Amino acid sequence: MIVMETQDLKLAPEFSVSQWFNSDEDISLAKLKGKNVIIYAFQLLCPACVSHSIPQAKKLEQVLDEDTVLLGLHTVFEHHDAMGPEVLQSFLYENKVRFPVGVDAYEANSLTPKTMTSYQMRGTPSMIIINKEGQVIRHFFGVVDDLELGLLLGKLK
Amino acid sequence: MIVMETQDLKLAPEFSVSQWFNSDEDISLAKLKGKNVIIYAFQLLCPACVSHSIPQAKKLEQVLDEDTVLLGLHTVFEHHDAMGPEVLQSFLYENKVRFPVGVDAYEANSLTPKTMTSYQMRGTPSMIIINKEGQVIRHFFGVVDDLELGLLLGKLK
Amino acid sequence: MIVMETQDLKLAPEFSVSQWFNSDEDISLAKLKGKNVIIYAFQLLCPACVSHSIPQAKKLEQVLDEDTVLLGLHTVFEHHDAMGPEVLQSFLYENKVRFPVGVDAYEANSLTPKTMTSYQMRGTPSMIIINKEGQVIRHFFGVVDDLELGLLLGKLK
Amino acid sequence: MIVMETQDLKLAPEFSVSQWFNSDEDISLAKLKGKNVIIYAFQLLCPACVSHSIPQAKKLEQVLDEDTVLLGLHTVFEHHDAMGPEVLQSFLYENKVRFPVGVDAYEANSLTPKTMTSYQMRGTPSMIIINKEGQVIRHFFGVVDDLELGLLLGKLK
Repeated sequence: MIVMETQDLKLAPEFSVSQWFNSDEDISLAKLKGKNVIIYAFQLLCPACVSHSIPQAKKLEQVLDEDTVLLGLHTVFEHHDAMGPEVLQSFLYENKVRFPVGVDAYEANSLTPKTMTSYQMRGTPSMIIINKEGQVIRHFFGVVDDLELGLLLGKLK
Repeated sequence: MIVMETQDLKLAPEFSVSQWFNSDEDISLAKLKGKNVIIYAFQLLCPACVSHSIPQAKKLEQVLDEDTVLLGLHTVFEHHDAMGPEVLQSFLYENKVRFPVGVDAYEANSLTPKTMTSYQMRGTPSMIIINKEGQVIRHFFGVVDDLELGLLLGKLK
Repeated sequence: MIVMETQDLKLAPEFSVSQWFNSDEDISLAKLKGKNVIIYAFQLLCPACVSHSIPQAKKLEQVLDEDTVLLGLHTVFEHHDAMGPEVLQSFLYENKVRFPVGVDAYEANSLTPKTMTSYQMRGTPSMIIINKEGQVIRHFFGVVDDLELGLLLGKLK
Repeated sequence: MIVMETQDLKLAPEFSVSQWFNSDEDISLAKLKGKNVIIYAFQLLCPACVSHSIPQAKKLEQVLDEDTVLLGLHTVFEHHDAMGPEVLQSFLYENKVRFPVGVDAYEANSLTPKTMTSYQMRGTPSMIIINKEGQVIRHFFGVVDDLELGLLLGKLK
């Protein structure tokens, strides 16, 4: 259905996360080797993230098997003061987000945070799908169609 | 279509607003006498407000005539630290909200803000419709159907 | 909100209907003088009619007051053999349409039926709104937004 | 993600189709051995089929690979006179359905057609998914969620 050429795929860069919510311990790609990983990158003030991506992620969480891990990544590239960790915590509570969400780390002199930069994300929402070998299989920018996403995830080994 | 008995209607209490966005001057019901007023009460972290109420308000703004004024009211009754005026300002920018939005005033020792209390709102989103005589015609809690809302507003004198 | 200039409005042409469903007697504009009339013109094989117009008409039926009459009009301008009255009857049953629906009359040598022609409808779905004086107030072609429709109908005297 | 136990699966019964649309030749499960097969069973007067199933099938058609075949099956179990092959042909044209659609055969003295009976379908829309070995993997009745469907189809070998 969707052919994924795993040759020539790039290794996914490690996360740079300053804080994790909904997780007792730090999460890293290194620890997740052997699992498929889905990363939902969002900003809490991004309307399409609230209306589409977060609900889709929550729906997806219900149907994923043990081989696949769902993570959120709060990639703030504007209005940094308005979207700090305290606001994010309330956002996750109000949106009933139970899966782990990391705060993308950023340096004071840079607008774009580190993980967002290393993955060359163009904005939010973005979705990155990483296979068990730690390779980036797909990189979406914008709202992703449910049927297309399901077909892609179903193909994951 | 929808019968509005204007007898026995209560006068709408005056706003208690600590700050207005998208308006150069203070807005009060007293100044708006002679206009119909639609108040969208919301919280920026309330998912249904972002997905439904704000888009509906923006759509409504396009079709209202000069006799009707559309106002937002940020009624924070939880997570006060996470939804301060700076966050609201960024929220309005990201959601492209151009109509005036007031910050419902609250006292330090009270969770529920003043206007929300005086209107006995049960939560967000809420919508209050006030006629030209300053009387509360309808009070909605939750998402309001477009067709029902249009019929109601079309009936306003 | 929506200004309707009633000057210069055209009188709505009388219906040419060969058969009525969901009505024990013939319906005519002449008999309906003094009522507002909403006409939903559709074809039973038109996808947008099934997905949008029929559900909207059914929703509208629940909220109209006694001064306004809702009518369907089956305006077949193609596939005449496939959309005869027997098929329409089953269609109305399956779609739970309870309001009166007329079959737009047509002559054997003409593709477009008579009422559709006299109202210069461009296709389906179309919606015609007629005021109590029998004047055409609005003529929509395509799917009509709920909020816009509500505002317009609310304004009807 | 969704575990499909292929042991104990039943062999899909052969189609009983009186006529095929959008196909120059007869289609049978026997000929399709070695392909996955998705059957959308519908009735042209069934509102959920028009609003959900046909659009979903058309969307699916765009993303399926060569190993999977999409078929429609017109399973008329009521209003037989209103949903004959001529009406179906116009329906397929109006709904821009390009994939093959079979007319489920039925005997004069039976309401439910033959394939519908042999698959024990409960109504429309129904969806049957058959694997390359000709076994029924899933049987849905009602509207199927896009994400769930995609995950299931992605898992097909």
